[in-house]
Amino acid sequence: MSFNISIGPNLRKSPYFDATVADGVKAFSVYNHMYLPANFGNPAREYQQLIDGVVMWDVGAQRQVQIVGPDAARLLQYLSARNIANTQPDQGRYLPICNHRGQLINDPVMLKLAEDRYWLSIADSDIELWASAIAAERGFDVVVSEADASPLAVQGPLAAKLIADLFGDWVHELKYFWFKATQLEDIPLVLARSGWSKQGGFELYLQDATRGGELWQLVKQAGGALNILPGAPNDIERVESGLLSYGADARLQRHPANPFELGLGKLIDLDDDHDFVGKQALLDIRKAGVKRQLCGFFIDGSAIAGNQHSLPITSAGRPVGYISEMVYSPRLERNIALGLLTTGLANDAKLEVLIDAESRSLTPARLPFIPYR
Amino acid sequence: MSFNISIGPNLRKSPYFDATVADGVKAFSVYNHMYLPANFGNPAREYQQLIDGVVMWDVGAQRQVQIVGPDAARLLQYLSARNIANTQPDQGRYLPICNHRGQLINDPVMLKLAEDRYWLSIADSDIELWASAIAAERGFDVVVSEADASPLAVQGPLAAKLIADLFGDWVHELKYFWFKATQLEDIPLVLARSGWSKQGGFELYLQDATRGGELWQLVKQAGGALNILPGAPNDIERVESGLLSYGADARLQRHPANPFELGLGKLIDLDDDHDFVGKQALLDIRKAGVKRQLCGFFIDGSAIAGNQHSLPITSAGRPVGYISEMVYSPRLERNIALGLLTTGLANDAKLEVLIDAESRSLTPARLPFIPYR
Repeated sequence: MSFNISIGPNLRKSPYFDATVADGVKAFSVYNHMYLPANFGNPAREYQQLIDGVVMWDVGAQRQVQIVGPDAARLLQYLSARNIANTQPDQGRYLPICNHRGQLINDPVMLKLAEDRYWLSIADSDIELWASAIAAERGFDVVVSEADASPLAVQGPLAAKLIADLFGDWVHELKYFWFKATQLEDIPLVLARSGWSKQGGFELYLQDATRGGELWQLVKQAGGALNILPGAPNDIERVESGLLSYGADARLQRHPANPFELGLGKLIDLDDDHDFVGKQALLDIRKAGVKRQLCGFFIDGSAIAGNQHSLPITSAGRPVGYISEMVYSPRLERNIALGLLTTGLANDAKLEVLIDAESRSLTPARLPFIPYR
Repeated sequence: MSFNISIGPNLRKSPYFDATVADGVKAFSVYNHMYLPANFGNPAREYQQLIDGVVMWDVGAQRQVQIVGPDAARLLQYLSARNIANTQPDQGRYLPICNHRGQLINDPVMLKLAEDRYWLSIADSDIELWASAIAAERGFDVVVSEADASPLAVQGPLAAKLIADLFGDWVHELKYFWFKATQLEDIPLVLARSGWSKQGGFELYLQDATRGGELWQLVKQAGGALNILPGAPNDIERVESGLLSYGADARLQRHPANPFELGLGKLIDLDDDHDFVGKQALLDIRKAGVKRQLCGFFIDGSAIAGNQHSLPITSAGRPVGYISEMVYSPRLERNIALGLLTTGLANDAKLEVLIDAESRSLTPARLPFIPYR
């Protein structure tokens, strides 16, 4: 069962859109009101190349909320449950962001471009609206906007070689989540060691939306000798790696969850002086203790297709959680899944999920399923 | 050139999703992080039936931001550029919402369910995040959430007959934008005289997401004698009617615009006591005067296809605005468009737009192109 996607002026195209069409993109999703490639017609090969080689992804839909001004650091600290006091310029940090009730509403990577200039490289919710409302209501002296910055991800074990060919050997020294403003030929960009996989890689934050096609071609040509493939953020690899997907594993309007439930507790700094949105709610949640946890699962039986929506988990017929995403792992040769499970059931032998009217047994598993590279 | 849409757990399905699939939906768009049907394979017939008969649309993606509590009215008034003091329970109002800079960020219909309970039936941006941030920062005693309320639109000149068959003759007395909490068989819903067309009609705000399939069938069966068709919000009709589309005509991150530019000036209440987000910015904008205006256009030459993104308008080579959406109107037998044009150019004889490498002349036109029914 497949459907077309309507391409119209109500949603935006990424700067790489035409290049992905020329290179044979077959399906799109929508992320931050922008078209995001989903696959190029050969998912198995796109997966394998991510694991063994190098792939390039148009992740322009991962938008940058820019915060600039004298109070930028103050605002960022107030938006963030994580204490970011020790962040250096050119350093990024993964930042769980909660609403005033302590529910996760996004989990961007923050890029500190300067003491008074930051980007939030956001997951799929309108953090620009949320952050600008808080800044204005508190009278902070900042401008919140969307930057002209559109990431192109280069991921996989051969990514570092390719990026070094393009930018020079200094890229090998770049630590995880650190970045540098630079250019390729004369195309301005920020080069970061980051990306939504655990296979290693970089993101090129293009800073001129008119030049997406050029940047795409430069990366593609340099990657030719390495058999680079176009692809897209990969659901199989992300489940294998236990990488959180805001929108799938939790979303405020469907499966709201707090960061303790989602395994982000160690990033929540409740015991120091810094005040932030949701702090009191999170103190209360920590005190009460969480009743469910993000968990991995093995699913028995024959190989499954991916799911279209979350599926209830039961124990002897009783609802005890949900599967957020399930895949067949080619490397493990098993069905694996992520989901939220009532605490204390890790050794429950009766966990089940209904897949296409067939009941399957679930066995909880530690994350990640496959250790990070 | 057509592409598939990826159906996965990161986006939500409407309660009517399975019913639309059973009835042959061919393409989707995404709206408020939810799949929204785009067409059922016969756009010409879906258009004609909206104009001549009756159609049913899954607009579940038009989500309801619910605001409940002692300070609900206070918050709504603070969020809204329009003075809503005289709104009665069971009355809806079209509500331009601006950010602190006076830029439009959504244009919902507000439904006042009770003195302390409201819905905002939103266009495509995360107003729940924005409104909840403002409420919390101002210490208002309200709960902002998403209601379990998913509209099914019934539109067209025969809609009133169909709705009267289902609910009784009292529906003929319902004034535009007014509504009533009721049920169909035992399915709870709010019935409103509203909808995103100017052909007349109703929206059934289903209040139990598990019963979308049942409601769909009840409407479909009752509409059988009227040859009801499934369809989707119709871009041709909305351009003919000059109906604003937040997301297409303007969007904060792409073509930001203020309500004066978008023809909403008469709904902006700047001269009374009510304080609201963006008031000072809008006072400044009004004082300075706007430099461009939403406008209709005739486009000369052969029949055009719809556009995938906005197109620049030029006058003797100079950029003077953009076309946001263009269509061929079967009723006018002409190409028509909406867009923003620099003020003072309504009689400019040299306006042009480049369509598929061909320059076409534009003639400004008054809105609506076709008077409302």
